[in-house]
Amino acid sequence: MADKPTKGLADVVAASTALSDIDGRAGRLFYRGYDIHDLAGRTSFEETAHLLQCGTLPTRTQLAEYGAELVRGRVLGPLVEANIAEIAERQAPMEALRTLVSLAGADDPDKDSNALDANRRKAARLTAQQPILVARYHAARSGRQAPEPDPELSIAANFLLQITGRTPSEREIEIFDTCLVLHADHTMNASTFAARVCAATLSDMHSAIVAAIGTLKGPLHGGANEQVMRTLETIPPDGVARAVRERLAAGQKIMGFGHRVYKTEDPRATHLREMSRELAEASGDATYYRMSKEMEEVVHAEKGLYPNVDFYAATVYHYLGIPTDLFTPVFSVSRMSGWTAHVIEQHADNRLIRPDSEYVGESDRKWVPIDER
Amino acid sequence: MADKPTKGLADVVAASTALSDIDGRAGRLFYRGYDIHDLAGRTSFEETAHLLQCGTLPTRTQLAEYGAELVRGRVLGPLVEANIAEIAERQAPMEALRTLVSLAGADDPDKDSNALDANRRKAARLTAQQPILVARYHAARSGRQAPEPDPELSIAANFLLQITGRTPSEREIEIFDTCLVLHADHTMNASTFAARVCAATLSDMHSAIVAAIGTLKGPLHGGANEQVMRTLETIPPDGVARAVRERLAAGQKIMGFGHRVYKTEDPRATHLREMSRELAEASGDATYYRMSKEMEEVVHAEKGLYPNVDFYAATVYHYLGIPTDLFTPVFSVSRMSGWTAHVIEQHADNRLIRPDSEYVGESDRKWVPIDER
Repeated sequence: MADKPTKGLADVVAASTALSDIDGRAGRLFYRGYDIHDLAGRTSFEETAHLLQCGTLPTRTQLAEYGAELVRGRVLGPLVEANIAEIAERQAPMEALRTLVSLAGADDPDKDSNALDANRRKAARLTAQQPILVARYHAARSGRQAPEPDPELSIAANFLLQITGRTPSEREIEIFDTCLVLHADHTMNASTFAARVCAATLSDMHSAIVAAIGTLKGPLHGGANEQVMRTLETIPPDGVARAVRERLAAGQKIMGFGHRVYKTEDPRATHLREMSRELAEASGDATYYRMSKEMEEVVHAEKGLYPNVDFYAATVYHYLGIPTDLFTPVFSVSRMSGWTAHVIEQHADNRLIRPDSEYVGESDRKWVPIDER
Repeated sequence: MADKPTKGLADVVAASTALSDIDGRAGRLFYRGYDIHDLAGRTSFEETAHLLQCGTLPTRTQLAEYGAELVRGRVLGPLVEANIAEIAERQAPMEALRTLVSLAGADDPDKDSNALDANRRKAARLTAQQPILVARYHAARSGRQAPEPDPELSIAANFLLQITGRTPSEREIEIFDTCLVLHADHTMNASTFAARVCAATLSDMHSAIVAAIGTLKGPLHGGANEQVMRTLETIPPDGVARAVRERLAAGQKIMGFGHRVYKTEDPRATHLREMSRELAEASGDATYYRMSKEMEEVVHAEKGLYPNVDFYAATVYHYLGIPTDLFTPVFSVSRMSGWTAHVIEQHADNRLIRPDSEYVGESDRKWVPIDER
């Protein structure tokens, strides 16, 4: 029996998975054995969600069936419909999503089953509903109606339409779809692990996803892309190098750099950098992209750190017209496909996840009555 | 680097804690160094919550202050008040608590701070509110008003009053108070671990508690005490031995027995057995207690397993007049004191909890366009 705590479970293998794999030294990421570089830009988010949840890249027929299931599944239930406006008014985005998915559990027809088929249906519904929840939340707090999703459009296209209120270009849709593919799964990250710990008591899919959303809410996990954007907005455009060095000298962390697993460039960052550059040029104002590039160079020179998935995602989302405080919710729109696949996998071969702890407190204290304390 | 998965993290030390310690071989449990046998029956739940959240058994003055904080803190916020009736109608108990605590986050004045003082105040509020949420939920779904909590009464007394609608006896209050003490904390159990995984991203107290509630919902964790009662209700009173042997022969698990950590009797079971006996005798119908004793003997003879905390808790709660489907919510009323203390501890010395996974899926799959699949 180990008697020393492993620091944050780093390098401890907590579970087996057939969903994704990382080669941290080579900077490679695989979804069910497919290299992320082969998927990004040529496989849609819907195909990727099918790959994760059902095990294979779909045929045309399978994709049509799964797509129809997503279209049917995205209709919000009555309990969510009745409460979304009030929750949007009172809760911040990730808090609201935590509450809304907890409410959605009551409306799900498969709520009382953890069987494989029921879990797959719930996974499809949750994947279909998450972008709608984010869009409807944003519309409600902005005092406007979100456009209805178009059954002919992809999740990426509908989301951009609903969030921005304008029809996105084909290239914007492709880029955002690629973002969703790149964020879909990433082995035993903290929110996925929380979902598996929850599911491993044989709790239900919605409970596990609510745990994951609450975990992603933390700034050490999901909040990083927002903080990257806030940093870019704070630093003077011509003072990047100085600002970065000042922060590093003060012992501050520069958000969006470094990763516990990757020892080289995060393969997702490669795609996001290029998409950020393309959108920046198309926008006519490439300031934030140029600042990002400079920041990347300075941080690498000073600390040897590489940008992670959050760093260039920030400017990509910004150029796509997504409000900064929705960056983490957008992450959840994509990661829902992976979270739900992990719950399916956990329930299919379950064992309670119950670690030990090392006791570091006082020992053998003598109890005394309250009046003698 | 380990490359084989530890089965469910058994025997892996995931975190350090000064809150509770288990000696599984000797069957001993300690809260901050105090033996549970010294606390049970002579220290109130309020004193125990103070011990866990603030570090010491309180003096009279500290207990008066903490008690006043609990009385102030138990007032439900407007978002919870506005929604509790509808949620009670639509969600099962643990689902409803998951949603209601998520909503309560919006009403908490310290919601945006993870600082020690803010976390302690949130811990007190959550501990004060959880019994009220359970009682108000039960009243709402039963179509009646719960009696107002009495500021002169303890959490245990108010809860029994609100749930049953009648004034409990002094001895009933003492026994239920002891139940709350016995369930308050238990090292790195699955729900506590989920709370710490969530909190370790620097997410907030309410997100971590929502994760814990969803995790406790699972039948391998919190559901066991309910299932014990359902088993007792199903088996004929004079056919316990046969029913147990039949179930064991069919490979079924008998709920309420065995524990990953204790290799001898769970020290909490010792107290709960005695309280079950006392309440059974006072009730005039000791059938369920006698059945429980027989079941304990048969399971020990057949499998060498000891009753765990859930086994005699079932009949204790039953004799106290608590509806069976509220047994897990009652567990959460007590464990809230420990969960919140673990979040305080995690935030006070934080490190992201991010394990590895072992990849067991297909490798190096070749991507092909959809029309060639």
